[in-house]
Amino acid sequence: MLTLGIDPGTARFGFGLIEGDRQLRHVAHGCLTTPAGEPLGSRLARIRDGLLPLFQRHAVTAVAIERLGYARRLTSAVDVSHSIAVAHLVAADYGVPVDEYAPREIKLAVAGYGGADKAGVQDMVRRFLKLDDLPRPDHAADALAVAICHVNSYEARALEREVGVR
Amino acid sequence: MLTLGIDPGTARFGFGLIEGDRQLRHVAHGCLTTPAGEPLGSRLARIRDGLLPLFQRHAVTAVAIERLGYARRLTSAVDVSHSIAVAHLVAADYGVPVDEYAPREIKLAVAGYGGADKAGVQDMVRRFLKLDDLPRPDHAADALAVAICHVNSYEARALEREVGVR
Repeated sequence: MLTLGIDPGTARFGFGLIEGDRQLRHVAHGCLTTPAGEPLGSRLARIRDGLLPLFQRHAVTAVAIERLGYARRLTSAVDVSHSIAVAHLVAADYGVPVDEYAPREIKLAVAGYGGADKAGVQDMVRRFLKLDDLPRPDHAADALAVAICHVNSYEARALEREVGVR
Repeated sequence: MLTLGIDPGTARFGFGLIEGDRQLRHVAHGCLTTPAGEPLGSRLARIRDGLLPLFQRHAVTAVAIERLGYARRLTSAVDVSHSIAVAHLVAADYGVPVDEYAPREIKLAVAGYGGADKAGVQDMVRRFLKLDDLPRPDHAADALAVAICHVNSYEARALEREVGVR
């Protein structure tokens, strides 16, 4: 199981790739950036072209995207939605299923508390993946958190199926 | 000048292609639809794959998209933004510039009045393009209106440059 987590955004688009289901292994992380002065289409093409090598080099089995928080302003929601569309499109081209998780779900899954702060979540990401340092930049760490959230939710769902939910 | 107007949406994505700058000629119109039950990525891929032939068969020189109205609910804004991203992406791949117009600008440019109703705008689209019938469905007619708005705005800007703005 190779999970690509995404912290979306048109200016900064974080990604983090992890392997495994119970024992997690860090594979890659990074942040695609696009210049504010460029037309939107070129910026979205940069994001797509930055994502493609991840799918070409790795057999990604799942994509997990941080969903919009509801407190967003409309302009910010529009901006983030554009980049989320690109992620869905690339994943569909590679036949990889996509799940979205709300910020609160991610904090809960990674730090055990839906109101956890950024530093707390990032430290848990470091511990989960047995990294010496915090992944940088923040967007990459957040993307790894989404991937961990997906694996944990996936595992929880699998366990529920196994034992039967009463 | 070959202008592709777009009335965006993930479920129904209207398009309209017109030729000319002062004398306008209708080239094509239609509406791409995607099934609600499908994953978002597949639906966006359908929109992309529906747009591509237009760019392959016609030397599109400009793309004009109806921008989100500010009264939109967040979920609706997100949905429309996803499909707008696809249009920007395809246009960028073909090196075609994209402009967005607010609903009010479109009504003003086509019907001469920013508060014009849907029927009024559609009838003006029919007259501008010398069509016997109203273009169907509504999304296609709305897309043609965006294209007309773009050409008119473009012409107005060209005229301003010609005479000099004092």
